[in-house]
Amino acid sequence: MKLYYAPLACSLADHIALLEAGVEPEVERVDLKTKLTASGRPLSEISGKSYVPALVLDDGEVLTENIAVLDWIAGEYPALGVAGPLGRTRLVEALTFISTEIHRAFKPFWHAGSSADTKRAAETVRRHMEYFSRRLDSDYLFGAVPTVADFYLFVMLLWAQRFDVEVPGRLAALRERIASRRSTRAAMLLEGTA
Amino acid sequence: MKLYYAPLACSLADHIALLEAGVEPEVERVDLKTKLTASGRPLSEISGKSYVPALVLDDGEVLTENIAVLDWIAGEYPALGVAGPLGRTRLVEALTFISTEIHRAFKPFWHAGSSADTKRAAETVRRHMEYFSRRLDSDYLFGAVPTVADFYLFVMLLWAQRFDVEVPGRLAALRERIASRRSTRAAMLLEGTA
Repeated sequence: MKLYYAPLACSLADHIALLEAGVEPEVERVDLKTKLTASGRPLSEISGKSYVPALVLDDGEVLTENIAVLDWIAGEYPALGVAGPLGRTRLVEALTFISTEIHRAFKPFWHAGSSADTKRAAETVRRHMEYFSRRLDSDYLFGAVPTVADFYLFVMLLWAQRFDVEVPGRLAALRERIASRRSTRAAMLLEGTA
Repeated sequence: MKLYYAPLACSLADHIALLEAGVEPEVERVDLKTKLTASGRPLSEISGKSYVPALVLDDGEVLTENIAVLDWIAGEYPALGVAGPLGRTRLVEALTFISTEIHRAFKPFWHAGSSADTKRAAETVRRHMEYFSRRLDSDYLFGAVPTVADFYLFVMLLWAQRFDVEVPGRLAALRERIASRRSTRAAMLLEGTA
């Protein structure tokens, strides 16, 4: 299995999840400015898209889109998913909220938005983080053990920290809890962001 | 089953999919400006969120987020999903691309963006529609019969038509193909947009 990633991009969630599952994927860095992999190939030649994550399975199938990749990982390694008849739906629901409401809200921070834009973005991020904080009644989003959704939320919490967006105390604690996991430290060391 | 929808919003995809599955959901319109349902309740009291779709199952569980709702429908009614070991992942991948790349690109059109913003947005939509067009080798995204992803793409194609964004001929044909289905006509009639 091979994961194309960019440091601190949302692909970090996939990297952590795979290590949690006991898989040590081959990894290759992608430069999000040039869209080239470390070995100099356009990522779009590999995945049809120019953004990460792209996960190449051992049979050559290439998975893209973070929601789909994380959902696939949780399907393969159910300990990282949500149990019960609506489990997978609740997981996809959380992944979608993180992607379409939180992840995209950070855009002005990453793309040199105006100060009005980043101020508005910070408000949006705070409001959505509050949503998760109000629902958090355990160590992780779905109980006592983390799922792939926690790893995606973790990356968003790292971004909030980087851009000085305050988050509720319970989510800051969740961030520290995930940061201290062996797989997280290993993934960040491998990606050069530890 | 009860679907909270807004006319021409992405909830139309869920409405069509349910009718295709032979389910006739109770439906209630939501005013996206006031965030109130037709009966005057804040949608957030029902679903925890102020946007559609929200699908209330017969046991009272409420599903939100279009990717999750459409994926749930495809899980319940596999004829609307994608077969094979990676089927569900490929479906979620397509739904995510439609949501995070195409749906969100329309934002300036819906929220009175500047003409520079809408021009850029139209370029983005065109580029992403090209992506699907290049991959289309059958009547629908995944073969000879439509999946929930086609219904979501259909709503995006209606939006493109509404905002005069040109789309590749093969996608315009897909739009007409879906528009002429009995379930699509019924859903649009019921929503008052036929």
